[in-house]
Parts: sequence; structure tokens; C-alpha cells
Amino acid sequence: MPPNYQTEPLMYQGLSDRFDGPRDPMCITDEALGLDYEPEVAVVLDDVPMGTSVEQAGAHIRLIMLLNDFTLRALTRTELPKGFGFLQAKPTSAFSPVALTPDELGSAWDGDKLSLPILSSVNGRVLGRANAGHDLFFTYPQLIAHAARTRSLAAGTILGAGAVANRDPAAGHACLAELRADEELGQGKASTPWLRFGDRVRIEMLDAEGRSLFGAIDQVIERA
Amino acid sequence: MPPNYQTEPLMYQGLSDRFDGPRDPMCITDEALGLDYEPEVAVVLDDVPMGTSVEQAGAHIRLIMLLNDFTLRALTRTELPKGFGFLQAKPTSAFSPVALTPDELGSAWDGDKLSLPILSSVNGRVLGRANAGHDLFFTYPQLIAHAARTRSLAAGTILGAGAVANRDPAAGHACLAELRADEELGQGKASTPWLRFGDRVRIEMLDAEGRSLFGAIDQVIERA
Repeated sequence: MPPNYQTEPLMYQGLSDRFDGPRDPMCITDEALGLDYEPEVAVVLDDVPMGTSVEQAGAHIRLIMLLNDFTLRALTRTELPKGFGFLQAKPTSAFSPVALTPDELGSAWDGDKLSLPILSSVNGRVLGRANAGHDLFFTYPQLIAHAARTRSLAAGTILGAGAVANRDPAAGHACLAELRADEELGQGKASTPWLRFGDRVRIEMLDAEGRSLFGAIDQVIERA
Repeated sequence: MPPNYQTEPLMYQGLSDRFDGPRDPMCITDEALGLDYEPEVAVVLDDVPMGTSVEQAGAHIRLIMLLNDFTLRALTRTELPKGFGFLQAKPTSAFSPVALTPDELGSAWDGDKLSLPILSSVNGRVLGRANAGHDLFFTYPQLIAHAARTRSLAAGTILGAGAVANRDPAAGHACLAELRADEELGQGKASTPWLRFGDRVRIEMLDAEGRSLFGAIDQVIERA
């Protein structure tokens, strides 16, 4: 991570030409690419003018949804040091079946963030339950203002805030990279493999009554 | 530049939500952002399947056009070291009024590259006339295969190959950054300023008979 990642958003531009449906298989050519998932909360914007301030940015959030931001960890090692961001290392993403308006989220959405746990599981085992409203470096309005500093953003722009992770160990792990890093620290060696063909990744968010808010992203990894 | 930039494409993902027309003003908020132009040759693709080989990639090139890839040099200094690529530093781009099919370019297009000079001028002074077919590190089919390694590319994908620059000093300078670097080397100090409000940038390509192939990108810099 660069030294200023807590004071200036570390934001990249991802693909926008094609997304997978929430129950589509996730297809890769080779398990050696090191496929990992990342559960995120994404917002959908209306037209955001260039130079929009943090104070103005929140009004441009029209929809909120979940995002599985897949990453090929074997490629980030060679791609990120080049400085031009993710290209091969971020294949296509999937979004939740349902997107909600801010008012539908009640007090869980405070205009800056969504304060509910996001559940991520692999093959039915819950690995992460971090609260999307805790431990953020930046609010959604701050991220929007960052993105719109030198350009307008067209209506329909999707902005994710990165893998939801908490400092509290009870929240589990945000992604396999985090789990494997903990295994390396604790046991000297990562024992959990990256995603393999046939594995199933499920990402969901429940409200206080245990009801699924956005429906589930539920994808099986398949060979392309 | 990373050490492997001549053996592995240095490719980033740019914005796709909104482009300027070829004669639209280019709007920025502040001259201190260090606005620079970059003349490029871009190709428009049809659907490219994941894993397309270099040999297969050329058949997916349906259109060829010119691109002015504006860059905010004052922001690349802080943005690129973060490793996540261009975001604020690459505002919107403009394309030529006309795009041509490969066959319309005759022998100038050989399936790998377009071998004609691209003319770029600021306020009527031609600063660059580099041949787009000389001194490339990668052909267009090689770049397409790189982009499609881990994902499909949707029809309409635009792929630029970077600022057209030649080693031959007679070709001039590809962009102000290159001109200013030469000034620093020769005179100890860059004397040509970045683009200022009211400046006009024109990018064009002529055939052997002096006819404009794609029409001109001709934009005036304005305050947003």
C-alpha cells in the first residue's frame, strides 16, 4: 500500500463493458491465476458534475447494492508494480440481484455509509461478516468527490468502496488474501487455497431481522 | 517506466462514460493541473473472447480512428506512484470525426499498425509529426490479446496504443511532456508551458496526397 492510503483514496478504474449476473458462473482459464473474491457495497450515481464537493456528493447516490469484486492475485504481483493499475488482475464482477434506494435502508444508511454486516462464504462456510459501516477510511461522498475532481461522472456510474474489512477479529476475513496472510503470520504458511473450479462464493447482507436486503450473489467458479 | 515496459504492455483502463466531440472545448478547472495532449491511433473492436491469441486478435479490429488522450501532468506525479493507475490524471478524451475500416486505409494499414505520420499542433504550430507505424513496442493485435487475457471485451471497446512518438528527432515531440523534457536536458529548464486557457490543440493524419483521413480533432482549452 502507498504511504498515503489513509489520507487520499486509492481508487482505480475498472471495466464497465460486461458484468456477470448474480448467479452466473465465474469463469477463469486457470486456477493458478489465484482467484479471490471481495465483498463490497457499491453505489450507483446520477450525473455528477466535475468539481462536486463532498457536501454535494451524497445527493448523487441513487442506488446501493452489493458487489463481488473478483481479483486474480497471481497477476496483481506483476501488474500493480507497473503503476498503471489493474487490467488483467481484475476480471469481471457481479452485483446483487436487487439494488435499493437510500431511503429503503432506513437508519442503516446515514448518507455516508451503510452500517450492516456483509456476509461472505465459500462452499457454505462463512469466512467474513464485517460491518460495512466500520473502519472506513473514506465515506461514499468523499470517494465520489475524489472521482469527480477533474471530470464529470455519467449517470449509471458504479462506485465500490473496496473489500469490507474490520479490525475486529470477530468479523472474520474480508477475502482469501486476508485469511492467507493471517495463516502465514500464525502458522508460517498459508493453508487455504485460492478459489478452485467448483467452489461456490456467496455474498449477502441481512437486516436486523435476518432478511436478505439485496438478495445473494452466489457464483460457482468454472473453467472458461 | 517499469523495467519491463518493452516486453509487457503497460496498459491502463480509462474512462468510458463520456467523451468530448472532436471540436468540443476541453474544460479543466485550473491551468496548474498541467494539461497535456497525446496524439494516438485507436482501434474499435467487435466482441473479443477471453483468451484470444495474437494471431486471432487482428480480425476483431473493425474501425481505426485518432484519439487525443489528454493528461493532467501535475496529477500523474502523485497518482501513478500509488500503483492503481490514472484516475484524476486522465480526464475525458476526444476522437476524430471519422473512423475508417481497415480496408479503407489501403497499404498504410498492414493488420499490425498504421504507417502514416500523425500531426499535432498547438496554436497552429506543428510540434509532432511522428509516424504511427514506427518505433512501436507492440502491435495492435498484441495489445488486444493482452487486454483479453482474463476477460472478454465487448463490441465497441476502444483500444489506444499510447502517444505516437519516434526516435527520429525530425518527427518532433509527441506531447508537451516530451518537449519539456528535451528543453530541460538542453537548456536546464522547460520553457514551453503546459496548455493554457485559450490554447488550441489540433491532431490530424494526412495520406500521401495530403488529404485528411479522419478529419481533425481541434479543441480549445477552456475553464470549466
